[in-house]
Amino acid sequence: MRGDYKRMFFVMAIVVLPATLQAQNTANEKFYQHTADKIIQAALRTDHAYQLLREVTALGPRLSGSPQAAAAVELTRQMMERLQFANVRLQPLMVPNWVRGPIEEAAILNSPSHGYVALTICALGGSIATPEMGLVAEVIEVKSFEELRALGKKAASKIIFFNRPFDPAQFETFAGYGGAVNQRGSGAIEAAKVGGMAALVRSMTPGLDDFPHTGGMRYAEDVAKIPAAAISTLDAELLSKIIAHDKSVNLRLKLTCQTLPDAPSANVLGEILGSEKPDEVIVLGGHLDSWDKGTGAHDDGAGCVQSIEAVRLLKTLDLKPKRTIRAVMFMNEENGLRGGIEYAREAREKNVKHVAAIESDRGGFAPRGFSVEGDSLAWQKIISWRSIFESMGAERITRGGSGADISVLVRDGVPGLGLVPESQRYFDYHHSDNDTIDKVNPRELQLGAAAMAIMAYLISEEF
Amino acid sequence: MRGDYKRMFFVMAIVVLPATLQAQNTANEKFYQHTADKIIQAALRTDHAYQLLREVTALGPRLSGSPQAAAAVELTRQMMERLQFANVRLQPLMVPNWVRGPIEEAAILNSPSHGYVALTICALGGSIATPEMGLVAEVIEVKSFEELRALGKKAASKIIFFNRPFDPAQFETFAGYGGAVNQRGSGAIEAAKVGGMAALVRSMTPGLDDFPHTGGMRYAEDVAKIPAAAISTLDAELLSKIIAHDKSVNLRLKLTCQTLPDAPSANVLGEILGSEKPDEVIVLGGHLDSWDKGTGAHDDGAGCVQSIEAVRLLKTLDLKPKRTIRAVMFMNEENGLRGGIEYAREAREKNVKHVAAIESDRGGFAPRGFSVEGDSLAWQKIISWRSIFESMGAERITRGGSGADISVLVRDGVPGLGLVPESQRYFDYHHSDNDTIDKVNPRELQLGAAAMAIMAYLISEEF
Repeated sequence: MRGDYKRMFFVMAIVVLPATLQAQNTANEKFYQHTADKIIQAALRTDHAYQLLREVTALGPRLSGSPQAAAAVELTRQMMERLQFANVRLQPLMVPNWVRGPIEEAAILNSPSHGYVALTICALGGSIATPEMGLVAEVIEVKSFEELRALGKKAASKIIFFNRPFDPAQFETFAGYGGAVNQRGSGAIEAAKVGGMAALVRSMTPGLDDFPHTGGMRYAEDVAKIPAAAISTLDAELLSKIIAHDKSVNLRLKLTCQTLPDAPSANVLGEILGSEKPDEVIVLGGHLDSWDKGTGAHDDGAGCVQSIEAVRLLKTLDLKPKRTIRAVMFMNEENGLRGGIEYAREAREKNVKHVAAIESDRGGFAPRGFSVEGDSLAWQKIISWRSIFESMGAERITRGGSGADISVLVRDGVPGLGLVPESQRYFDYHHSDNDTIDKVNPRELQLGAAAMAIMAYLISEEF
Repeated sequence: MRGDYKRMFFVMAIVVLPATLQAQNTANEKFYQHTADKIIQAALRTDHAYQLLREVTALGPRLSGSPQAAAAVELTRQMMERLQFANVRLQPLMVPNWVRGPIEEAAILNSPSHGYVALTICALGGSIATPEMGLVAEVIEVKSFEELRALGKKAASKIIFFNRPFDPAQFETFAGYGGAVNQRGSGAIEAAKVGGMAALVRSMTPGLDDFPHTGGMRYAEDVAKIPAAAISTLDAELLSKIIAHDKSVNLRLKLTCQTLPDAPSANVLGEILGSEKPDEVIVLGGHLDSWDKGTGAHDDGAGCVQSIEAVRLLKTLDLKPKRTIRAVMFMNEENGLRGGIEYAREAREKNVKHVAAIESDRGGFAPRGFSVEGDSLAWQKIISWRSIFESMGAERITRGGSGADISVLVRDGVPGLGLVPESQRYFDYHHSDNDTIDKVNPRELQLGAAAMAIMAYLISEEF
């Protein structure tokens, strides 16, 4: 794609001032390549982001409203202070405060073939509890909302088991996820619409494992709220077999989760001030909250520490970007997006010019490129830099979604970029007890930070 | 059969009608893209290669000449039989039989600052033993052979500690490895040349860890043989600090390894017979032997099972390639290359036409592309297929080395390709106790097999 870059400039050169511009272009290209290589090397000489991630994950899971989330706010604020970021501050906001209860149980009660079978489940985030004694109902399996609706009254008073698998045949795991996740997000609504008692959803992972993967779910205002839980993929397979064999199977479900009143929390901001246009901001962000399974190492401790590390790398190398580059630890991506909403609201209110926003929220794996949403002009510039990312293997730059936290900024017209790392392992860990720091590789994490730093720097200098 | 028809049409089109030709090219491209996608999907629907790798690694480490290596020969032969490969056979050969002894010890004896310090080491493969009581000598640190030679007589009767680090700042970990590995390969020779008593070599890994990474080392005919061991990077750092502080430090080294007479072993071959040109062969290979640390999961159990899985995928999808595609489990890559040499020798002797050889020996991580050695015509064809590998993220096709086992074929004029996977984690595990199956991801392993199957199929149909 070096060719493309040259070709684009060549076309302009014909119109304007061929020789000078072309020479300038080559010089620029060389300078940026040199700068990128310096950033990559500086990143790979340390495991600084990994050390930060150790600190963050040592606090435990950081569900919005939890004491651990509050600790993470203060920890990352202190990190930015200690790294001498400019304008370190909190952006206060209120967050939902859903709490998983101490008891989460599901069991098949009366299988003629299997007898009593305990199932590995966990409440989905936002679910109401079951009655205190639990609920018992026949369980029926569906693969889609269409299938459920077709059942109509047959589904009434049943526990609805959503068992459409995450398609493992897709190379893009996020596409596999996208093809299954509506069961988790809307399963309880759809189940309640046909009179279901509860929703039990196959975990969102392409593999077969024995732990549940939690995640967000929604209720609708005009539809009854019913409890919703995730079941491990291995137990989903087992349950499906038992239902197929026994036809009528009763399941007991007990959840003790609850939603407490909203709690105070905050986004955490810190920056390197632009040397020429300090009022124009490029955001580098991840979300500080995590689900309450594992310790949110990949989702999204990685994105947070990479954002901090990217700013640190630019500072350490004394690159003095023209525009302000700001690390933002967004709060509450997982179950409310309050951080992203508040950040964009304040930006609008104070009329802060945001040049671009870059989010890392797909795990701390080796970066392979960026997914870009923005107008054609932004896209043309970004794609013209593709060759600069080749030396670190991050040259897959495509059109596509950027990140949830920055989506509100994007809706306000700010170009958004999502860091796209290698994705094959991500959903093995996602939203589960398995999302811990031992699954993160220090070099891969550092490379992601380097890719973000390079992209932010290029945008700062060239937008 | 579809291929036949298309090829015929393609040839006619060249002679007759340019416009038709272009349309046909597009049709071919589409057909191959469709075939590639079918292979990728079939690969991702199973974890078959991972299950094979379980069987291989369950045997334990497979150092040439060991009973475990013999078991691996028989196991993979049976795998190919059970998968109904054609012409499954062994290619007998003799291999070196170096055996690590039960005792491997190193300790600083008289550090004024640290007293007695045990160091974590292991013999390098091929090393002679120390005297039975061990040897004690002053240890001096060098970073290069030049530095060692400059020391001249000062190095005589010393233990030479080679401590030039694997450069972590290089994105390409194999480049970092290449920049340090001569210390391991030739350290004993260079140390003996200046009268050194033994060579102690910093482990070949970019990180700091507490286990030694073994690997091959050589002796020269006209230079005294002295013992050689690897030291963990953490202990290399410690030893370096102690030497810098204490100036004169004595080290005791004891190794009980030995080289036994050569042992009988074999390459294992099995194939899918070409439908049109069965006498023309494309090799898919990895090496079955491993070092005696860990269980050689990434190095190179992965490459072996991927070669088998690639052939299985082509069989399962009933693609009937025109040329014979052969999986080869090469024996003795790590300390002799006898398998690669014997395979090429027989090919020469029997005048077997080899169209290309593809090796996987850089770990079972997500594939990112291929490294190609061959003439311009082969290169032009292969690079023209680049877009076909984009849908699986394996489109980085570059000029460069292919693989050690196929290097003899390559020297005989056969185009060689090396599968290039994501490389950031590889040297964390390489040649150490850490190279075990839990470091392998089933999807990543399957994708590598798919990339090899697609490349072999394209070569079969289009070379």
